[in-house]
Formats: sequence, C-alpha cells, structure tokens
Amino acid sequence: MAEKQDEKKVTPRSQDFAAWYNEIVLRAELADYSPVRGCIVFRPDGFAIWESLRDELDRRIKKTGARNAYFPLFIPQSFLQKEAKHVEGFAPEVAVVTHGGGKELEEPLIIRPTSETIINYMFSQWIRSHRDLPMMLNQWCNVVRWEMRTRMFLRTTEFLWQEGHTAHASAEEAQNETLTMLEVYRQFVEDYLAIPLVVGRKSAAERFPGAVETYTIEGLMGDGRALQCGTSHFLGQNFARAFETKYLDDQNQMQFVWQTSWGVSTRLLGAIIMTHGDDQGLRLPPTVAATQVVVVPIWRKADEGEKVLAAARAAFDQLNEAGLRVRLDTREGLTPGFKFNDWEMRGVPVRIEIGPRDVASGEAVVARRDKSGPEAKSKVSLAAIAEKVVALLDEIQKNLFAQAKAAMTANTREFDDYAMFKTQMEGEGGGGFAHVYWCGNPACETQIRDDTKASCRAIPLEQNVAPGKCLVCGESASERAYFAKSY
Amino acid sequence: MAEKQDEKKVTPRSQDFAAWYNEIVLRAELADYSPVRGCIVFRPDGFAIWESLRDELDRRIKKTGARNAYFPLFIPQSFLQKEAKHVEGFAPEVAVVTHGGGKELEEPLIIRPTSETIINYMFSQWIRSHRDLPMMLNQWCNVVRWEMRTRMFLRTTEFLWQEGHTAHASAEEAQNETLTMLEVYRQFVEDYLAIPLVVGRKSAAERFPGAVETYTIEGLMGDGRALQCGTSHFLGQNFARAFETKYLDDQNQMQFVWQTSWGVSTRLLGAIIMTHGDDQGLRLPPTVAATQVVVVPIWRKADEGEKVLAAARAAFDQLNEAGLRVRLDTREGLTPGFKFNDWEMRGVPVRIEIGPRDVASGEAVVARRDKSGPEAKSKVSLAAIAEKVVALLDEIQKNLFAQAKAAMTANTREFDDYAMFKTQMEGEGGGGFAHVYWCGNPACETQIRDDTKASCRAIPLEQNVAPGKCLVCGESASERAYFAKSY
Repeated sequence: MAEKQDEKKVTPRSQDFAAWYNEIVLRAELADYSPVRGCIVFRPDGFAIWESLRDELDRRIKKTGARNAYFPLFIPQSFLQKEAKHVEGFAPEVAVVTHGGGKELEEPLIIRPTSETIINYMFSQWIRSHRDLPMMLNQWCNVVRWEMRTRMFLRTTEFLWQEGHTAHASAEEAQNETLTMLEVYRQFVEDYLAIPLVVGRKSAAERFPGAVETYTIEGLMGDGRALQCGTSHFLGQNFARAFETKYLDDQNQMQFVWQTSWGVSTRLLGAIIMTHGDDQGLRLPPTVAATQVVVVPIWRKADEGEKVLAAARAAFDQLNEAGLRVRLDTREGLTPGFKFNDWEMRGVPVRIEIGPRDVASGEAVVARRDKSGPEAKSKVSLAAIAEKVVALLDEIQKNLFAQAKAAMTANTREFDDYAMFKTQMEGEGGGGFAHVYWCGNPACETQIRDDTKASCRAIPLEQNVAPGKCLVCGESASERAYFAKSY
Repeated sequence: MAEKQDEKKVTPRSQDFAAWYNEIVLRAELADYSPVRGCIVFRPDGFAIWESLRDELDRRIKKTGARNAYFPLFIPQSFLQKEAKHVEGFAPEVAVVTHGGGKELEEPLIIRPTSETIINYMFSQWIRSHRDLPMMLNQWCNVVRWEMRTRMFLRTTEFLWQEGHTAHASAEEAQNETLTMLEVYRQFVEDYLAIPLVVGRKSAAERFPGAVETYTIEGLMGDGRALQCGTSHFLGQNFARAFETKYLDDQNQMQFVWQTSWGVSTRLLGAIIMTHGDDQGLRLPPTVAATQVVVVPIWRKADEGEKVLAAARAAFDQLNEAGLRVRLDTREGLTPGFKFNDWEMRGVPVRIEIGPRDVASGEAVVARRDKSGPEAKSKVSLAAIAEKVVALLDEIQKNLFAQAKAAMTANTREFDDYAMFKTQMEGEGGGGFAHVYWCGNPACETQIRDDTKASCRAIPLEQNVAPGKCLVCGESASERAYFAKSY
C-alpha cells in the first residue's frame, strides 16, 4: 500500500458535495460500482455498518411484538394491479422476469419493489378471526426499483431494507401502530445513528402509493438537502379490500382488516456519511463503527520498536477486554501520517498514538475524530486507557448528534415572504429546511416545486403555532410544514 | 382456536414420509406455499430457526477471518458464459429479467443462481498484489434456481443461503481453506443442529459446475435417503482465468489467484425436520428452538386457578431469568391435552406442567420432547426448576444427536455383492447409506444410478480401508464411498 502515500486529498465538501460523497464511499471502501446498471457492491467496511444498524433495529422492532418472516422475491404481475394507486406508483419502475428454466413464463413475474401485495395475499389465507389479530410481521430483504438516476446507497436499483406489515382489527389500533413505528425509527436514527430529524406526515403528493397517510423522518444533509430516512404508512383498508383480507369479528361479522407498513433501507448509510462526514473523510458514530478504536504504534529507531509495540499491544488488549472493537495498526512501510489519514478517512472514532516518549511517561495520545485541531488530542494514562476511551466514545456519540443538530438548526429558517424563500432555495447550497405556513392546497405545493424544486418534506404532528398565512397564496393556514430540496 | 381441538393426527412417517413432512411444515407453521410457483413463505416459527442458525454460523465464519459483503442480485447474462462448465450447469435453471423500467433491456440479466461470476469480476478490480490476498468474503442472500420439482425448504425456486468466496496466492492455501470450511460446517451441523454426518469429497459427476473438487457434508434422513447439507468447493484457477483475476506476486510476476467457494442454505431446515421429527411432529434441538420451554398451568376449579397461575408465573420468571427462551401458555378454552399436542407438534424441547397437586407439593412435571412414554416425564422441585431445565436442555441436545447417530449407523451397510446392494436400494424405505468399494470409474457410478437411482454421496477423506474390489465391476478399488438415494 506504499504507493498510496501520496494519494491526493478528497474534493472538499464545500466545493462539490456530490463528488466529495462518491470519493468518500469509494476511498473508505464502503461500496463500489458494479457491472450491473444502478447496482452497487457493499464492501465489508460498508456492510459492517449495515449489519450493526440492522441488528440493533431488529431488536427494537421485535420488542414491539413484530416477528420476522420471509416472503418471495417474485410477485405475480397481476397482484400489482389489484390496488389502483399502488400499480400507478410502482408499475413504471419494476423489473420483470419473463423467462425461467429456459421457457417463457405464462404470467410474467415482477421483482418486489415492496411487498404489500404478496403479503396481503398470504394474510388473506392466514387471518380468519379477530383472535388472529393483530398480525405483525417484518422482513429484511432486497427490493428492486428501476431508477433512472442512481447514487450509491441513496438510490440504487437493488437495495436492502426491512419492511414491516401489520393487520389490525380497528383503524385506531392500526393508526397507533403506524405512529409507534415512526417513534421507534426516530429514536433509533437519532440515538443510534446520531442523525437529528424532523418528523411528521407527508403531503398527499408525497404519500406512499396505496397509503391513506404516510409519516416520515427526515434528516438534513451536509449540503442543505433533505433526506427521507424512513417512512411509516397507515394503509387503511385499501390493500385489505383489494385482496379480500377479512376477519370474523367478535360479533360474528366479516370485516376488512386495517393495515400498516413501515420501512428503512440501506440509504441510511448515505445519511450517516452526509450528516457526519467532513473533508478528511468519514466520521462514524461509535455505535455503528466496525472499528471504534485504532492503536497506532510509532517509532523510528529499531531499539525503540520492541517497547512501543509491547505498550501498544497492552493497550489493545485492555481495550479489547473492555468489549471495544479495536484494531492494532502494525502495517509496515507506512508513515504515521499516512496511517492517521487512512483511519480518519475510514471514520474510526478514536485513534491512540503510542511513541517512545509516551511509553517512558506511561501515557498515550488520544485523538478523537469528532473534533479537529489541538482540541482533538489529549494525553491519557496507559494504565486507565480503556476506561477513558469508553467514556470518550459515549461523548463522541453525543457530540456528533449535537454538531449535526446545530447544523440543522442553523440551516432551518422561517419565511413569511415567498420571494425571500425562493432566493434562499435558489442560492448556493441546498437551501436547508424552510419551516413555512402552508394552506394545504396542492396547487401551492406544486408551485413551490415548479419554482424552486423544493418539496414538502414533513408536516409536524405537533404544531404549537398560531394560525398564519400560506407562504404561497396568502390564504389562512393552520400549520407550518418543512419544505426542502431533497435526495 | 377451539375448533382445532379435534384436528386429526399427522400421517405417520412410516406410512408416507413425504406427506408426513409436508404436514409437519404446515402444521408447525414453519412455512406455507406461496402463489409463486416453487417459492415458499417462511413463517415466523420457521424463520426463527433460520435466524438462530444463521447467527451462530455467521459467528463461526467470521472467526475464520472472512467478512460479510453484499453483491448484486443481477448478473449480466454474458458473465455466466465465461466459464464453460458453469454455464452448462446453471444456464438451464436461471430466471431471466428482460424488462426494467418499462423498457426491454439491451442485455438480459439473470438472477443469481450463485455468485462466482460477479464476485470474480469484482475480485479482478480489487486484487492487485499479493498483499491483497487472501481475500475472504461471505454473503447471506437469496438465490434463484428454476427447479422442476420443488419441495418446501429442500428444493425451492428461491432460497436463502450464505456463499463464501475466497481468493488465495497458492493452490495449497486455497485447498486448506476449502477443508477448513468443510470442517466448520461439519462441527456446526453436528453440534448445533444435532445432525450426524458423513463427510467427504464428491465424485466428478456430482461436482459443482466449475469446481476442481467439491467436498460435502451429507446427512441421512428419517426415510433412509441422504441429504446434502453443505458443500465447499476448491475452484482452482477456473474462474480466475475466465475473469482475469490476477495478482502481482512477491517476485513481481502476474499470477492467477486460487479460489474457493462454500455454502449452506435454508434446506438445513428440512434436514432438522427430517432427522429429528417423529409422528407427534417436530423435535427441535434446543439451540435453534424459538421456544425452548413452555409452561402449561392446569386446573379445573376456579379457586385453584390463582395458585396454579402464580406458581406457573414464578416458574416462567425463573426460567426467563436463567436466559432460556420460555413461554407461558395461558390460552383459554383449550384442554391441557390439546396444548400438549400443540407444543409437541411445534417441537418445543421441554414442557412443564403445573397443576394444583404440584403446587401443594412444590413440584412440577417436566416432559422432554426427545423421549416418549413414561420415561419422558419426571417430577422436579419448583424451587430449582431453572437449574434442572438448563441441564436437561443440554442433555436433550446430546440425546437428539445420539438418537440420529444410532439411526444413521443402523441404516448404513457395507456390501460386497451388487445384487444384495440392489435389493436393499430397491426395497421399502430409502435404502440408507451403502458404504462400498468403488473403483472410481464413472461408468460404474452411472450403472448404480441407472439400476437403483442411488448416487455417490461422499468419498471419505480418511479411508483406513484395505484395498478391495469395486462393487460393480470387480476391478481393484482403493476407496470405499457412500452411495445412497438422495433428495
């Protein structure tokens, strides 16, 4: 790897955010382009982040009472057509299997873009009585949507996700489930991924095809554009009616079930990169970092090596025994400077540097990835290094959230004047969140989109605002909504 | 669920093994048929077994140094054609995507039946020097093979599996990796799934398309037919040559890498059912059982209920705190007899029955699923119930293996006489394992297959046999191989 030592710096975020993003993904070896259009390869360092967040979210989902299952990759084409809005939304982006086993299929199969239809078919087989409800299932799987413009993690033809699907005896119970999962997502993304969010319902134009109401969690990325990080849908009885998913209630009457679905995907990896990354590379929240701490021994003279290495190994052992995910960087032929840059690029939260003078004084230099300059470094006693690093990782997790929260707050504005709003959205940078009165008329939303490319990202559930006037038409408005340009 | 109380018994294994198998899968709610030909739905009780074994195997795979990654579902059709044997083996069973996003694709995409080709394409991008080797990756994913005859878990159009792919600098290192993974599989299946195995290499006819050598672990199912439970392939340089996967060695020479691939799939769920199940239903090894212990409180008079329920809850708490996966069956309107049958059908290893007299004497009845009749039940002090059950689960795990091992041994025979061998293979039942001398000539193997439908399942790596004569042609033979009819 010696030839990498004079590798050039990444494009600064401020100069070209999209180029910066792609370079980070490739150089931190999170993913790579594949020979299949719009599909990426998750490399081990990227997949490890997904595994970590998947396992944690899986625990949280199971705690709500949902259980995991697995439904077929293929969906008969006719299924998609049973729910009018659903087919309208998904038909243009499906991949179609027409041949299998050397023969043309009688009915083409589509590759699931989402599984409401096939799951409803099975629900209609399994659900007979109110005693079978609620039925709460989740699956982790791959889905395919034929996207025109793709971007690594954010929008790929194939992606990985979880999709929860539940059926309930009453509208109220299903609505509660929709909001319960929205809150599970919010806590998970804010606490575990350190990404601050705006939470609310979607406008009708942004609803999931087939849903009565869609709720969303939205982050604000480093370039001022919003990213939808997860959605929870109240499906009402739309799919139940399409698939005859009925149950016998306690009055012996047949009723359609009330349903929800909810999902988050591998685009969360993009959210982590674009929320926390800086011009040196990735910055990973300690919770998801495959390597939380790296120990770098430093020496020049051969006779110093042995003592330094022994101290580095002792530190490694201490950190490892404390349950931390730690690596010891003993690679030869690389300068300390190269190694520091390399681990910074890969987003490792804490780096420990141990040289001959440190060994002599029983100390080490601890560098934290969430800060830069002199305040990123401190001296720590080698004897108590695990204790110190455990506390530091916790502090870094909180600080990454605080930094992102401050950035989001600084980039969220209220507007009463449409011209000023347009100027902001058309200016340099993504424009940030605009928190504005909207009358709810789709025409005003369309006008904003046509004028600025910004869309309604979320209408907060709790408003706490006095009545005002719609930013666009000036009619009375009872709610403020978040608008932004988005991924 | 009251209507289920007079449900009929399952078809006995001895009467119709295939019918018994399907009934167990459906009635224990492990899986269900789907509206897509050859694809099944994994229901929560079935998927929980897969999750448990996947997580354990994943730990063991990572311990060997392999890391998880994820490659695209789609493979360009031209990739399959680069390795001659590979295309010959897989082309007839692929599913083909011809349309995406409403348009016909320029080059059709196949859905991965296995990923050697696309992974080699990526390896050829990533591997430059001997310092990049070994490269050891694994992925958990779905694959599709268009099967003519399908059977739940054992052979389905879509199935779930893990596939490991490694690249090495020398043939010896790759061969060692192949055998290391074979041994990881053997230990995992024998220890964790309690399934005894025969281990060895495959004959040329049974090799993976594109491999130089295929190694296998084979179980013997309850009907005397063999089931391939996992394979590990030494690929030599076949795919490296097809995809130009080369590295610069330490002498500055370009060399093709040496490769392996290895996998196990959801067919292991079928292996568990067919190895351990009996006429009462499923019998799950405690390691993979979603519910390890069920507590069933029993009472008739209303005034007894409170005390019995309190004792049952205390037992539940004690077992739960001991880290066991335990359920308390307080369902109303069901007889104890129905509940016992229900939990036996679902394969729960230990059942605890607590009635009024048990509460009075401070005891409970413990019934173990691995035995039947009077010896399945014993009395245990309620105060020490967790300790007793922990030990019992360990005993059950070992006993299930011992029972299966005894059955396999009893159904494994040596033959010197081809007529006797044929009689055995053509008789009632699957025929079991025949451990016979084979000269290695494919013609003799073909004759056995034509005469009896038995195939060569495995040629043990350690033979410890004196030279003998081929069962078919009588020529000299240095090895004994296991032949059997198989799934």
